[in-house]
Amino acid sequence: MNTTIDTPQSAASQSTSTLPTISTHIYPKGALDVLSREEVARLRDASAGGLHDLLRRCALAVLTSGSASDDPRAAAELYPEFDIEVGQQDRGVRIELKHAPAMAFVDGQIIAGVAELLFAVVRDLAFTAIDLNGDTELETSNGITDAVFRLLRNARVLHPADPNLVVCWGGHSIGQDEYKYTKQVGYELGLRGLDICTGCGPGAMKGPMKGATIAHAKQRRRRTRYIGITEPGIIAAESPNPIVNHLVIMPDIEKRLESFVRLGHGIIVFPGGVGTCEEILYLLGILLREENSHLRFPFILTGPTAAAPYFEQIDKFIRLTLGDEAANLYQIIVADPAKVAKTMDSGILKVKEQRIAQRDSFFFNWALHVPLDLQQPFVPTHELMAGLDLHHGRKPHELAADLRRAFSGIVAGNVKEDGMRRIEAHGPFEIHGDPDIMQALDALLRAFVQQRRMKISGDYKPCYKVVG
Amino acid sequence: MNTTIDTPQSAASQSTSTLPTISTHIYPKGALDVLSREEVARLRDASAGGLHDLLRRCALAVLTSGSASDDPRAAAELYPEFDIEVGQQDRGVRIELKHAPAMAFVDGQIIAGVAELLFAVVRDLAFTAIDLNGDTELETSNGITDAVFRLLRNARVLHPADPNLVVCWGGHSIGQDEYKYTKQVGYELGLRGLDICTGCGPGAMKGPMKGATIAHAKQRRRRTRYIGITEPGIIAAESPNPIVNHLVIMPDIEKRLESFVRLGHGIIVFPGGVGTCEEILYLLGILLREENSHLRFPFILTGPTAAAPYFEQIDKFIRLTLGDEAANLYQIIVADPAKVAKTMDSGILKVKEQRIAQRDSFFFNWALHVPLDLQQPFVPTHELMAGLDLHHGRKPHELAADLRRAFSGIVAGNVKEDGMRRIEAHGPFEIHGDPDIMQALDALLRAFVQQRRMKISGDYKPCYKVVG
Amino acid sequence: MNTTIDTPQSAASQSTSTLPTISTHIYPKGALDVLSREEVARLRDASAGGLHDLLRRCALAVLTSGSASDDPRAAAELYPEFDIEVGQQDRGVRIELKHAPAMAFVDGQIIAGVAELLFAVVRDLAFTAIDLNGDTELETSNGITDAVFRLLRNARVLHPADPNLVVCWGGHSIGQDEYKYTKQVGYELGLRGLDICTGCGPGAMKGPMKGATIAHAKQRRRRTRYIGITEPGIIAAESPNPIVNHLVIMPDIEKRLESFVRLGHGIIVFPGGVGTCEEILYLLGILLREENSHLRFPFILTGPTAAAPYFEQIDKFIRLTLGDEAANLYQIIVADPAKVAKTMDSGILKVKEQRIAQRDSFFFNWALHVPLDLQQPFVPTHELMAGLDLHHGRKPHELAADLRRAFSGIVAGNVKEDGMRRIEAHGPFEIHGDPDIMQALDALLRAFVQQRRMKISGDYKPCYKVVG
Amino acid sequence: MNTTIDTPQSAASQSTSTLPTISTHIYPKGALDVLSREEVARLRDASAGGLHDLLRRCALAVLTSGSASDDPRAAAELYPEFDIEVGQQDRGVRIELKHAPAMAFVDGQIIAGVAELLFAVVRDLAFTAIDLNGDTELETSNGITDAVFRLLRNARVLHPADPNLVVCWGGHSIGQDEYKYTKQVGYELGLRGLDICTGCGPGAMKGPMKGATIAHAKQRRRRTRYIGITEPGIIAAESPNPIVNHLVIMPDIEKRLESFVRLGHGIIVFPGGVGTCEEILYLLGILLREENSHLRFPFILTGPTAAAPYFEQIDKFIRLTLGDEAANLYQIIVADPAKVAKTMDSGILKVKEQRIAQRDSFFFNWALHVPLDLQQPFVPTHELMAGLDLHHGRKPHELAADLRRAFSGIVAGNVKEDGMRRIEAHGPFEIHGDPDIMQALDALLRAFVQQRRMKISGDYKPCYKVVG
Repeated sequence: MNTTIDTPQSAASQSTSTLPTISTHIYPKGALDVLSREEVARLRDASAGGLHDLLRRCALAVLTSGSASDDPRAAAELYPEFDIEVGQQDRGVRIELKHAPAMAFVDGQIIAGVAELLFAVVRDLAFTAIDLNGDTELETSNGITDAVFRLLRNARVLHPADPNLVVCWGGHSIGQDEYKYTKQVGYELGLRGLDICTGCGPGAMKGPMKGATIAHAKQRRRRTRYIGITEPGIIAAESPNPIVNHLVIMPDIEKRLESFVRLGHGIIVFPGGVGTCEEILYLLGILLREENSHLRFPFILTGPTAAAPYFEQIDKFIRLTLGDEAANLYQIIVADPAKVAKTMDSGILKVKEQRIAQRDSFFFNWALHVPLDLQQPFVPTHELMAGLDLHHGRKPHELAADLRRAFSGIVAGNVKEDGMRRIEAHGPFEIHGDPDIMQALDALLRAFVQQRRMKISGDYKPCYKVVG
Repeated sequence: MNTTIDTPQSAASQSTSTLPTISTHIYPKGALDVLSREEVARLRDASAGGLHDLLRRCALAVLTSGSASDDPRAAAELYPEFDIEVGQQDRGVRIELKHAPAMAFVDGQIIAGVAELLFAVVRDLAFTAIDLNGDTELETSNGITDAVFRLLRNARVLHPADPNLVVCWGGHSIGQDEYKYTKQVGYELGLRGLDICTGCGPGAMKGPMKGATIAHAKQRRRRTRYIGITEPGIIAAESPNPIVNHLVIMPDIEKRLESFVRLGHGIIVFPGGVGTCEEILYLLGILLREENSHLRFPFILTGPTAAAPYFEQIDKFIRLTLGDEAANLYQIIVADPAKVAKTMDSGILKVKEQRIAQRDSFFFNWALHVPLDLQQPFVPTHELMAGLDLHHGRKPHELAADLRRAFSGIVAGNVKEDGMRRIEAHGPFEIHGDPDIMQALDALLRAFVQQRRMKISGDYKPCYKVVG
Repeated sequence: MNTTIDTPQSAASQSTSTLPTISTHIYPKGALDVLSREEVARLRDASAGGLHDLLRRCALAVLTSGSASDDPRAAAELYPEFDIEVGQQDRGVRIELKHAPAMAFVDGQIIAGVAELLFAVVRDLAFTAIDLNGDTELETSNGITDAVFRLLRNARVLHPADPNLVVCWGGHSIGQDEYKYTKQVGYELGLRGLDICTGCGPGAMKGPMKGATIAHAKQRRRRTRYIGITEPGIIAAESPNPIVNHLVIMPDIEKRLESFVRLGHGIIVFPGGVGTCEEILYLLGILLREENSHLRFPFILTGPTAAAPYFEQIDKFIRLTLGDEAANLYQIIVADPAKVAKTMDSGILKVKEQRIAQRDSFFFNWALHVPLDLQQPFVPTHELMAGLDLHHGRKPHELAADLRRAFSGIVAGNVKEDGMRRIEAHGPFEIHGDPDIMQALDALLRAFVQQRRMKISGDYKPCYKVVG
Repeated sequence: MNTTIDTPQSAASQSTSTLPTISTHIYPKGALDVLSREEVARLRDASAGGLHDLLRRCALAVLTSGSASDDPRAAAELYPEFDIEVGQQDRGVRIELKHAPAMAFVDGQIIAGVAELLFAVVRDLAFTAIDLNGDTELETSNGITDAVFRLLRNARVLHPADPNLVVCWGGHSIGQDEYKYTKQVGYELGLRGLDICTGCGPGAMKGPMKGATIAHAKQRRRRTRYIGITEPGIIAAESPNPIVNHLVIMPDIEKRLESFVRLGHGIIVFPGGVGTCEEILYLLGILLREENSHLRFPFILTGPTAAAPYFEQIDKFIRLTLGDEAANLYQIIVADPAKVAKTMDSGILKVKEQRIAQRDSFFFNWALHVPLDLQQPFVPTHELMAGLDLHHGRKPHELAADLRRAFSGIVAGNVKEDGMRRIEAHGPFEIHGDPDIMQALDALLRAFVQQRRMKISGDYKPCYKVVG
């Protein structure tokens, strides 16, 4: 290996970067090591073209994983000269790293786990670009599911073992008390031989993995899986935590969500922001469908004692809008990590029995019906928001889907740049809905603001009006 | 598993089949176990369509591997009701076997190794049909090489380990003395930790594997590779020998030959028929090219004492036609298995050094230049035979390629149905060539007939005339 | 490694040894690699002292394993200068080989499997000398069993896996037809995942291992056990066959027999000589004991059609002398390898169930009661032979033990040097027994002579007289 | 498994124990699973006899490992009814646990790692009792070393791998700042593939293991070793930390120290109390011997910036008393974890080279000379203390040994019950020594008191007087 430990030579270079960097090249193992010449060429071209900036940002996120700040945007400023290039030679792929953070290296050698995550970034970004490019199949529901399957298989997270994968959802910036609770739950899951899959950032996405790591060590489990599933917009803002040993970058939020529900054998939701609420409604929108009513799917909401009101409010909102039937799909457990793990463990056992009985695969939930409109991105324009139909009497799964969209739009109008600009330009969204539903929605949002789960500058002012 | 041990119930069924059979279904492992729904559907359709008869014949060859007769055509008569069907279910592929030979089963359970070979047959036939179907890339040399690479990768025979794969060529119906010699060479190769790749039938394709098996056991090597590369026309006529633990079915003879030279790290040629002679000329046609002149490629001709004249004649013929330069590319070793193995072992060490120096892959010889005309099938019509140019003064690698074609045509004219019919219809081929070359060719062919390496009914009568 | 390939320099050295030899030193792995300084010193001393000649002979047997002649006595003449020395250094044991057969080496490197067997020889001979030296515990039945356990554990053949070990007994010089049959039975056992344990020489001790090797390869079983249990007198006369991958040298014949019955989960007896007959009586002497009557112990006598009379005679003799109860302990199966394997397989399943129910170990049959008189050597003097009591009415297991001794003495009197000399000096043995038993015995012996299973020079003349 | 989850039934039982317990029995794996009947009987007897109370206390320490308090004495009060019994059955050992802490179980099943440590406790205590009982060899230096070797081998921590074991010494109750530093050093060691061996308690014995765990995970090392070596007096007072995956209980402090220096390939000393100082003198007493002068032995003193004065004082004291030659044996590195790890890494590489050159074992440092007086316990009576000779001019290694004893006695006189009683009864120790040495000693002790590294109630008052 021809490695250079970069030393800032001039005042100029010092002014741009104060942290030590290393320039070197590495040769991938695993998914990228047996490629044809043509595949390598396509990989190289994809990485050099429109993809390059995205690749650069994602790679930097991985190379600074585990740093104190955990903020990849800060990283971009700290390593302004960093660059990555995918090259080709007969033997295969060669990745050039220029001015890469020295923290990812030991004595000039890249840390094995960091290298793995880096190869995963290259693999997923480039293959997505290659594999899904101009693919007409992405217009059908089955086609999208097939694409999700192929991307997960290419990331080598599908393998025929006993069901044991628990997906954990929840906020990335939760309180110390809640974070500690996610670790305890992870510990109890790990003691029972369960593996963890999360969104791969900090907070509720890191805690369960940390807890499980200790428990797995105690149980002498060596082949463990800490799967992080992310997407380009998220990873560039949130470094994968250093425990993740399988990193997957799906092309967009919807395919990421579909990966969670098809890969996981059960889902635990910890306290989070409004995003977590959207995820709950997404899952209810699926599980409430008649096609899925026979499927076993362990679904638990849990948090420490202090988080009890959060789940109570959500539960109340769901019962009001979607009915008790919807509330029966999940179980709320407060301040009892062992019970959460036991419930999940026995739930997954039943999932296994059902998969065997139906000769369904253990590693991908083909049987779950995910409708096309939950597979496609939702951009909250005034027009689309005005098209929502939040009245009683609709089919619960359709109402759940529209509620998720309403949430999504309102959050955008309050905190996302795009959405706030739209509100400024066109005034508040007009939403059609029954008064009690709209009041409940308002109450829920105000509670989130009060609990500082939705961060608003100044006072909270609804960005929508109800038009009945 | 829902297995039926078929018992002939009526006189009718007894009359068609006298051997015990079993009907059951099996679920693939390995290459076929993580497929998308669409891939499974395509696999099912391919197997049910035009491919079905080929699949049936190849499967039967595998299921009767190791039987006394070793003649799959006999097998077809012994198991007239045998059928195979590739089915689909959410979980993946399901293979139905109907009236399959009971010899492939133990207490109703298919033998693990037989199942592996059977999955390989399904995998290769169906994937070839799917992957290469209407592929325009197959019109270029690079495109063909890429396809060969993909098929070998899909068969999981490409993996990044130290170079140790010896390809063994030679006749499938050789004498007992020669067969024993191939075992001894295989034994000496195995003692040195070398793996074996052959055409996967009997004779010189089985002997080296058998010898290596004993040596590998003695050396306590557990992860050994006995790779058999075949093609549809051959496997249906020659069962893979039971030692093969990696079976690959390439789409045609030329891709099979290219697989040998790109996969193997050295080649040993045992005595054989005219076909073996053709293979030698094929390899010389490649190695004599200037682009390949720098490449290390261990190439040994060897046999027991009695086979010495066979190689002397070939050597003389090559020296006369292609010059000493061509003869320098191989080494003839007579009756010394240990020397063969030692020479191959040290030759492969140099291959390894060269691959490292050139950063070339260990598992696929990308650097070898194989010209398009050696990648495309040659059908010996009178017109094409008249187009051959067997004169001194040509570039040796071009002459080698034309000599190979001349051999191919003459053999066809003498022993293959198609060719013999053409000769009957249009008279002998007219071949343009220098008299000394043509005389040498004639002498060689007569010697083969005399040694019973080319089987002729009646006296040998040349099927060509020289037109200078 | 400092290796010398010995070349005969002078006429003198050539006259003593015509075969190539190698002098080198090797460092053990496995059982001998973590020894204390004191253990190494004891090992060195034991090997240099009275044990040295035995060690030399056994080592030579192992180093010539697989040679054409298979006769270690010939080996001693072919390698007259061979010597072995166990040395010490801080790191551990170092074994010096002087003028060792070159056939055990490849390019100056000892073959891994041969080295393993060689280490086993050193380990067992030296440890026996060290561990059992002056041990008073060897005077009790439990003490002997404990010693057998320790020696087997030290040889690393005790390990907690599912019961699957079949012991095969039978003659070492059987006919081609019978040998082929033992291979077929081994093949069928191997197909069912069963491992093989034999006396580790040729004939019926090699055939089952050879057959199982092919079947294990077909079933893709990689961790297979071919255990050979021998003793110093036998190994020096019969090289272990090259398939054996675990070699154990027990101190004497009785401990070797006890190893078979405590280690194996079932026993198959192939045709053999009078020795085989003795082994059958040994096992009946154990199984007929009341203490063992509840124990499952699959016990099958089998051979090809031609061997049917052999087993019929033995069966008749057992029924007459020990009663039908004794005959019920075994099952005779003629010319049906698959049935033998199936019967053994299901028998071993019941052994497993019983061990679980009784919380008995899988790897050593502690529950089996072996009385002290079957654990101690029997030397057939006139006095002891006169003490035998072969009358009806005795407890079957006692009669079985005395019959075994009678056989042993008669064979000695007919074919062993010691015994023949005793007969010459003191006249025929006087044996007390009922006439019908004695006549049956006589008939059996005459049949063996006729079938050439007991080799007599000249006419057969009984070496005993019946005194009622 | 027949498990009872104990529920306090009566007020009486509640008054004695308020924590949940479980009664069950478990069957050992690993070292205890292939025992002879006699060995099991001896194990049972040893555990039931004089050893029982010790076994009970050690087992409880292990079963409460990782609890908040980390204080096994508290544990004894919290689980007053806890008991352990080693039983026998044909299959092997059976361990009965009565009223064991529920925290060691998951859903009624003991945690795998806790079970492993528990088996280690039984193994080491019982085997020590059996193996060393009345052993006359323990009177010689070689005999003791041999015993240490056998105990470590029996604990399965000797195995032939590349040298990579770093022993970390230091205090068990260090400050947060120092603890964090030990984690950072462990992290840097782990990044370089080094394994950790400590005294297995909290503080500096836990930090390096914790840090290494994270680094090993990042480097994807799966087969890691966290070896804790303790002795009965220590383990009963300090639970092994939960990261330890190999626990060894040596019979006494001296054999524990010898294990560290023979097993480890280098030693790092973190700040600690006076005990740590004693350990440094112990190691210097060995390394200063002429017999050991040629041996490579990486030896580093390190701590965070705040600990610099601690090491300066020690260094000054050593230079004054033992000379610069002694100080050259170690390297002091302040506040630079990466440098510590790099230095250790390259030091161990040289150890490896030396072992290879000398054909010495990788897993046990036979070549190191440890004199008998450092292998035998030192009990500080007035008589023995008066026999110390702390004058300049002695051989450094002898002076080092006497200084270690002086320290040991003075600490006892100040803080240990036994010693304090002796001082009360007979007045201060009389120590013969040069004034400058004695003043330096006094200064060092006063500094420790001041830094709260030696805990004194009331003012510090020397427990000795200098008599020149």
